Amino acid sequence: MGFQEVASALSSLNKTAKATTVSPDSVINLDHGDPTMFESYWRKQGEKCRVVISATDFMSYFSDIGNTCWFLLPELAEAIKRLHRAVGNAVTEDRHIVVGTGSTQLYLAALFALTSPGGPDPISVVCAAPYYSSYEEETTFLLSGLYKWAGDAYTFDKDEPYIELVTSPNNPDGTIREAVVNRAEGKTIHDFAYYWPQFTPITCAVDQDIMLFTLSKSTGHAGSRIGWAIVKDKEVAKRMTKFMEISSIGVSKESQVRASKILGVVAEDCERFGCADDSNNFFVYSKRTMAERWEKLRKVVKGSEVFSLPKYPQEYCNFSGEFSEASPAFAWLKMKEDEDLEGILKGQKVLTRSGRRFGVDERYVRISMLHQEDAFKIFLERLTALVNANSMVEKVV
Amino acid sequence: MGFQEVASALSSLNKTAKATTVSPDSVINLDHGDPTMFESYWRKQGEKCRVVISATDFMSYFSDIGNTCWFLLPELAEAIKRLHRAVGNAVTEDRHIVVGTGSTQLYLAALFALTSPGGPDPISVVCAAPYYSSYEEETTFLLSGLYKWAGDAYTFDKDEPYIELVTSPNNPDGTIREAVVNRAEGKTIHDFAYYWPQFTPITCAVDQDIMLFTLSKSTGHAGSRIGWAIVKDKEVAKRMTKFMEISSIGVSKESQVRASKILGVVAEDCERFGCADDSNNFFVYSKRTMAERWEKLRKVVKGSEVFSLPKYPQEYCNFSGEFSEASPAFAWLKMKEDEDLEGILKGQKVLTRSGRRFGVDERYVRISMLHQEDAFKIFLERLTALVNANSMVEKVV
Repeated sequence: MGFQEVASALSSLNKTAKATTVSPDSVINLDHGDPTMFESYWRKQGEKCRVVISATDFMSYFSDIGNTCWFLLPELAEAIKRLHRAVGNAVTEDRHIVVGTGSTQLYLAALFALTSPGGPDPISVVCAAPYYSSYEEETTFLLSGLYKWAGDAYTFDKDEPYIELVTSPNNPDGTIREAVVNRAEGKTIHDFAYYWPQFTPITCAVDQDIMLFTLSKSTGHAGSRIGWAIVKDKEVAKRMTKFMEISSIGVSKESQVRASKILGVVAEDCERFGCADDSNNFFVYSKRTMAERWEKLRKVVKGSEVFSLPKYPQEYCNFSGEFSEASPAFAWLKMKEDEDLEGILKGQKVLTRSGRRFGVDERYVRISMLHQEDAFKIFLERLTALVNANSMVEKVV
Repeated sequence: MGFQEVASALSSLNKTAKATTVSPDSVINLDHGDPTMFESYWRKQGEKCRVVISATDFMSYFSDIGNTCWFLLPELAEAIKRLHRAVGNAVTEDRHIVVGTGSTQLYLAALFALTSPGGPDPISVVCAAPYYSSYEEETTFLLSGLYKWAGDAYTFDKDEPYIELVTSPNNPDGTIREAVVNRAEGKTIHDFAYYWPQFTPITCAVDQDIMLFTLSKSTGHAGSRIGWAIVKDKEVAKRMTKFMEISSIGVSKESQVRASKILGVVAEDCERFGCADDSNNFFVYSKRTMAERWEKLRKVVKGSEVFSLPKYPQEYCNFSGEFSEASPAFAWLKMKEDEDLEGILKGQKVLTRSGRRFGVDERYVRISMLHQEDAFKIFLERLTALVNANSMVEKVV
């Protein structure tokens, strides 16, 4: 389901205008990675994250006319670079920053930047399966003559130019990814939305041609629709900026100023990391919360002969200075039998996303681990019931 | 030139990072309708327009799951309807509101909503010349198989489905427009960005299938990138919402909350209109300022045998209760001789947009009337010099 279909289903089933309101008999939406679990952290941050916008702020289309991305607020560019430096997850020196209405718009901008109207055929866009379910729709919905969706990168064998999308950690399964096609005619777009300490150990500062990040997953502010691209080549950054100009004449400055504030506060905390009490550090808090959720989920699934979860290696995290394993934003749950797992969970009033949507089969579902605590608790109870019911069936058989 | 090219030119010529900073020898950018002239009004409004956003606001993707446009803040929908009711410029009862990242994104959403992948050929998109210069680029930049640009509506003679764009008041020339093709297979998108009392007399509440409005032109807050569509058909509104979902997963909620505040304040003022001191009403202020600018400009052009401006009829404005003539956001200046008027003005360090970009010829330019007072003053001085120089040439010849 898309956001539209989930919203409509939730509203009619739960009889509420809020996507995040749950009660013990509610339908629980774990279809989208709506990052509402971090609300409790941000509630404690109070005034230092508050933004005040007055009547005359941001009246002009322009922000910084000397910059390639002329609508980017300089303070946002600065906060982005500062945070990446503090976390150590990406190289930003001598790179161009392009801001977008979420990383979704930046993905489309990157496709536009890497193709040109002169070419004989639309260029193939591939991604190793299982891949993020929205890439296909985003690539195909306008029937562009610039690019076309060509599916799983593992099966791409054409001797022609192509664009490979690399998502690392991967959505849906949390694995660390590298490009798989690796031919001279290929270009890459790296989606690093989940390359933050709460989701995975930070093993190096990534440094690829086009790298996408988003506020939705880094700090949990999905409603702001702020994403950013770190781009090596100036001409590519220019073309991406051109895409934003043609499709929306830039990006909300209110969201940009708010993102600067939030990222700046997190960066400042991280710069002091290790020197003082770290329990209030956003990544320390969110990593701990994610790890606790994963522990609870693994405990439930462990008792099952029917369900399984991916295993992640222990790795040294440069940010925390500790060995740990990944605690991804999504659980990639697999069922032994060849059954429609999404349908089974829907029967338990839990909305998830079928493996079919990610280029694999219906034995898999993607389950968001980012929802509010009460929704996660109800999910665990319902999954426990399902595990127990299935193990009873197992024994009887 | 696009925004990108203007930004880059201004920054290198004027050696400043601000698009709105001018000095007596600056290059003046009147290429875009950057509505910075309204800043002085908003400065006086103070605290009642101030918006405070705290750390936990707007973390979810969702705003109102029971609504067709699930990411639209209910308070924004309410403020939009309230303002249209108070001004009397558009029918909103029983209509669907879709919010966009500026009306630009909504235009693309409307194209998507009115076409479908099943069709044999891309559907033709037409607009009566002179037409808004960006429509062509927005329609063609992705080489969509859903729609194609077919230019001037007056010359469209194909017996096939088509989409006609109607901009009223028209950008660039300020005239009131109606659809010109009027065939059964046609659909229309009405761009009413400039149908507000400061630009034109409000003669009726418009009521078309898809009507686009934008904060940039209604109140002058261009940096917020907030536009809205008023849509009759629910399925069309749903498809437009789907477009926003696929291309940017919704629209900045910070901008939405700020737009609600601004539109609400203006609407409240307008509801009291006629009962008290009106001089602080936004439309009274902005209409007066626009009229003054037009008077000054007409005075300069009147002395010329070479330059001319369109004439607008006196009409009764339902909002102000007075007869007045239009004072459009752009001056559509024409030169008698067949010369490149954009180039001539560029020689005077005034950036404008050539008639060629609007589907007509180079004797015309579009000049923004919305820039800050000092830029407008410098423009008038330079135009006066040009008029004087040309009338001397005229006399000598």
